[in-house]
Amino acid sequence: MKPLPDSQALITDLYELTMAAAYFENRCQDVASFEMFVRRLPRERSYMLCAGLEQALDYLENLRFAPQEIEYLRSQPVFEHVGHDFWEYLAKFRFTGEVWAMPEGTPAFPGEPLLRVTAPIIEAQVVETFLLTTIMFQTMIASKAARVVEAAQGRDIIEFGSRRAHGAGAGVLGARAAYIGGCAGTSNVASGHLFGVPIYGTMAHSFVMAYADEAEAFARFERIFPHSILLIDTYDTATAIGHLAARGLKPAAVRLDSGDLIETARQVRADLDAAGLAGTKIFASGDLDELAISSVLAAGAPVDAFGVGTELATSRDAPVLSAVYKLVEVEIAGQRQFRAKFSESKTSYPGIKQVFRYADATGCYVRDVIGRAEEKHSHAITLLECVMRGGKRLRPCPPLREVRDRAHSLLQRLPRQYRLLRNAERYTVRVSDELQALLDQVRESRQL
Amino acid sequence: MKPLPDSQALITDLYELTMAAAYFENRCQDVASFEMFVRRLPRERSYMLCAGLEQALDYLENLRFAPQEIEYLRSQPVFEHVGHDFWEYLAKFRFTGEVWAMPEGTPAFPGEPLLRVTAPIIEAQVVETFLLTTIMFQTMIASKAARVVEAAQGRDIIEFGSRRAHGAGAGVLGARAAYIGGCAGTSNVASGHLFGVPIYGTMAHSFVMAYADEAEAFARFERIFPHSILLIDTYDTATAIGHLAARGLKPAAVRLDSGDLIETARQVRADLDAAGLAGTKIFASGDLDELAISSVLAAGAPVDAFGVGTELATSRDAPVLSAVYKLVEVEIAGQRQFRAKFSESKTSYPGIKQVFRYADATGCYVRDVIGRAEEKHSHAITLLECVMRGGKRLRPCPPLREVRDRAHSLLQRLPRQYRLLRNAERYTVRVSDELQALLDQVRESRQL
Repeated sequence: MKPLPDSQALITDLYELTMAAAYFENRCQDVASFEMFVRRLPRERSYMLCAGLEQALDYLENLRFAPQEIEYLRSQPVFEHVGHDFWEYLAKFRFTGEVWAMPEGTPAFPGEPLLRVTAPIIEAQVVETFLLTTIMFQTMIASKAARVVEAAQGRDIIEFGSRRAHGAGAGVLGARAAYIGGCAGTSNVASGHLFGVPIYGTMAHSFVMAYADEAEAFARFERIFPHSILLIDTYDTATAIGHLAARGLKPAAVRLDSGDLIETARQVRADLDAAGLAGTKIFASGDLDELAISSVLAAGAPVDAFGVGTELATSRDAPVLSAVYKLVEVEIAGQRQFRAKFSESKTSYPGIKQVFRYADATGCYVRDVIGRAEEKHSHAITLLECVMRGGKRLRPCPPLREVRDRAHSLLQRLPRQYRLLRNAERYTVRVSDELQALLDQVRESRQL
Repeated sequence: MKPLPDSQALITDLYELTMAAAYFENRCQDVASFEMFVRRLPRERSYMLCAGLEQALDYLENLRFAPQEIEYLRSQPVFEHVGHDFWEYLAKFRFTGEVWAMPEGTPAFPGEPLLRVTAPIIEAQVVETFLLTTIMFQTMIASKAARVVEAAQGRDIIEFGSRRAHGAGAGVLGARAAYIGGCAGTSNVASGHLFGVPIYGTMAHSFVMAYADEAEAFARFERIFPHSILLIDTYDTATAIGHLAARGLKPAAVRLDSGDLIETARQVRADLDAAGLAGTKIFASGDLDELAISSVLAAGAPVDAFGVGTELATSRDAPVLSAVYKLVEVEIAGQRQFRAKFSESKTSYPGIKQVFRYADATGCYVRDVIGRAEEKHSHAITLLECVMRGGKRLRPCPPLREVRDRAHSLLQRLPRQYRLLRNAERYTVRVSDELQALLDQVRESRQL
């Protein structure tokens, strides 16, 4: 059995399907608009970098309920009062709606809609769970990667964390997101094959240990992979460098995976230089994150590139990005009705929206305004684009390399005080007067 | 494009494949044994509950490199010095090894091998990444679930977190693991379909908001799903209960998803009772974890069941379970050679092992001993079982319901002081004299 079904239709919460049945039985075919946004960022984050849209659109285009999936649903007692027509409907179900979204690689902030779905309410509701998990997971990892890349000050970061990711799928898609966030590549081969992410690899301690002698292990590896990266800390780094010199091996880099990195890197650099291996670089890994990398570089440790695993692949310090998917308007008999939620701290703004981003004369971002979709702000750029209409993509997703380049250049336009790893300033996001007025109007109409 | 490839062969770190090529080119076909274990538990955990073995064995049985995957690998510059024979080998690659493992639902502790692979070294190495991510992710979630279930003191816990899981696959497999850990079921429909996990659902705020009137929304839902769970906190709980009474609706439960749960649950219980709905239960959700559930119940709040999402689906307080997969012996020309790692705090014990668990006269566990596989401890039970030989499962995996029951009964044998949610005592795990002697012997032989 495969770890995931061929069809993705049942990767949803049951309530999406019970609500679908209830809408269907009540003949509710109203067109609804839902928006996805994040209310608050984790304490350790100051921005998001959007990712995952390609997989979200793949899902919407290919969403089908297979016959055996419908059989499974029908066999569940909860559906016993649901009539035959609903199952016929589900067998022919297609997503036919319209999607607006921020393209992958766009920096975004809390409160801003990252994606909007407008579709017959059943369709718009059924896709909620999959869209949330797909976009939020990749956005979380891309955002974490951007911090790690920032810390490395131009040195390469390789994503190494598949073994610690939340299952095989998280490893593959997390590697994709980490690349969007600025990593140079990944160790995850499937992410290379599926998405074109550059792949990197070194060797494991087990390879060194499989041979009776470390020098023999190095020589055997270099014969097949000349100018590669050798792991030199299985036993003792100085002895290992001695083996390289004695055998005339000139690896592209040596990898350090344990110990006090600052001290070890300095000693290893000196030993390499003394052994005539000035051209051999130092690649460091082992429980690194953006703060550790900052410290290592601030101490002047001669590290040329970093492998980051666990902390990046799980966004360990902030492993959740809580987004919501809220109903903002319904079209009933051709008439727009606005919806909002007022309970306690969970207010949501009614109506479909657009995000307007203002830049200064040098192109640096100064503030965003969340407004009604119909508003015009002539000096701002609009962040939400129509990417799907009638259930079909309007254009193919761009190559991932372009997405990564775009993310990099847009992040550079976000002034540095908003990108600090710690105590970053909060970027200004305002609600437009028109949107505020609509909220007040909806609130009043409810109180009447 | 699907989020995951049909074949899982490339869901691995590149270095597994470069090492495979290096072993192949060097004609190394030695049989190697690797063991998977966790060095240290996260601060908040006192035991693990094993899960994920079924998916690991599925993977091993079905592992194949598809022609287009081999083409992809050959096109990578890193492999330019690798000869044709290796690609021929990879095209016919099958996992032919032997696997010993703790069955799913077994409580386990740091240092104990959870799984052992014995196979020609290339096979044993290539599967490392997939085995680690598969077993560690589900073990992490099952272990978290066991804590949440413990906190609920017999009340049902429903896993609700798919939308916050690390992608679609993590939601499906996490729901499976949460069920092993004792949850009553999940909202994830695919996990119900694929694994038989019981599925549960309520309704979303959006359903209530889609209708102009909350009372109408309730009535329309109850018509199709009589005796269901209605969400009553979209606007005001007292008003909502008034609607139920006025319309003669008798839901099985009402769901509360916001606000101060202790206070709200008391008020709602009183309102329900006053409205003649004493039979209607209270189902609570909203940012709950094991500590919040403990507090709610300690305060005597009348909650009958809990939905737990984010905290469970991501194991948010401890989102990483760091396991390693270590080479412990190699058979070279028919002779066993032991391998161990001595660097700093990362010592690993050589040789294949068994875990011996001792119980007292009442069946309660008192200590574990990690020993050499060949040892006999006549009063202990052995935890590692042979589950695969020659690349084939020895028996089908048991139904998930049985795995869950087994987990529950074994956890009850772990005395309460080791299961406390906070400040649990550390369970005793010792290394046998024979294993310690082997380590000393291997260390000495290296120093000669």
